[in-house]
Amino acid sequence: MIVDKKTVKQLTKNNNRGMELESSINNSNNFYNENNIAYISKRPTPIHVISSKDGIINRANYEKDSTLDYNGIYKQRYIEFEAKSTKSETSFPLGNIKKHQLEHLKRINELGGITFLIIEFSTLNKYFLLTYEKFSKFLGENSRKSLPIEYFLENCPEIKQGFNPRLYYLEALDSLTK
Amino acid sequence: MIVDKKTVKQLTKNNNRGMELESSINNSNNFYNENNIAYISKRPTPIHVISSKDGIINRANYEKDSTLDYNGIYKQRYIEFEAKSTKSETSFPLGNIKKHQLEHLKRINELGGITFLIIEFSTLNKYFLLTYEKFSKFLGENSRKSLPIEYFLENCPEIKQGFNPRLYYLEALDSLTK
Repeated sequence: MIVDKKTVKQLTKNNNRGMELESSINNSNNFYNENNIAYISKRPTPIHVISSKDGIINRANYEKDSTLDYNGIYKQRYIEFEAKSTKSETSFPLGNIKKHQLEHLKRINELGGITFLIIEFSTLNKYFLLTYEKFSKFLGENSRKSLPIEYFLENCPEIKQGFNPRLYYLEALDSLTK
Repeated sequence: MIVDKKTVKQLTKNNNRGMELESSINNSNNFYNENNIAYISKRPTPIHVISSKDGIINRANYEKDSTLDYNGIYKQRYIEFEAKSTKSETSFPLGNIKKHQLEHLKRINELGGITFLIIEFSTLNKYFLLTYEKFSKFLGENSRKSLPIEYFLENCPEIKQGFNPRLYYLEALDSLTK
């Protein structure tokens, strides 16, 4: 599916806001990879090439992907997650998660994969790991348009920050199974 | 890493030859996905965007990816593989598998992922599933520049062909663990 102009603007806006988050996750993924802990990488954005010559693309559109941003392997298991950032200090707007992403999370969860969201509250400088199971339960029990920060503080492990890796998100994941 | 002109021509040549194979695997992946058996998809080719406006890419290069063509989840496990096609009736030229792909296969295998190659002998209309373990063993014991068809017939499950899915490659994988 080709993404329309309005969606592209929205994507670009969200992407700029999320660039630092993406960079932190890439740094963490490199750390986990170099230390033989996991292999997780960002999926390239699919494009539809309209014209190209000698390996140079002269015209192309972005395409919408049904999968999430990151996938890979950890403790033999398939892992897939999405990372989102909000400037809000009080809640995470649920409009940030699209319907097709929710459906994909459900699909992978049913197949036995490990699925979650990494949510950054950029103004608060806090990161949380929200599993699909918890997220799905919340959506089933609430009709709210956002997830309050209190929900994260009470229900989700906070992701420890460091220099290398910048985000200890696999450690946050481990804390859920201990 | 930006791919040079010569590599691009080679990639394009290989890609054209492999288009039918890719289409068959995509068909199989759709079948497995729709029947809740697995979720496996082709990783988009990463590109480096040089110039873009309003979501239209005006200039970009292809980038080299360290991962393999396909990855996903099957029986809770992480799965990753590469598909290659040869017109030869007698052997599969090992030059088709690049050093960085071998290293990546090794890495994923060590992390407990399921890794293999799907090899098409297009003239013979035969497909085989070659696990990384077997491939690695062969490379360690031989200095040959190609894998003879006899090796495949003796050591690798042949992938059954059909209408939907076109290639029963997960069934070939299952046959190895029964």
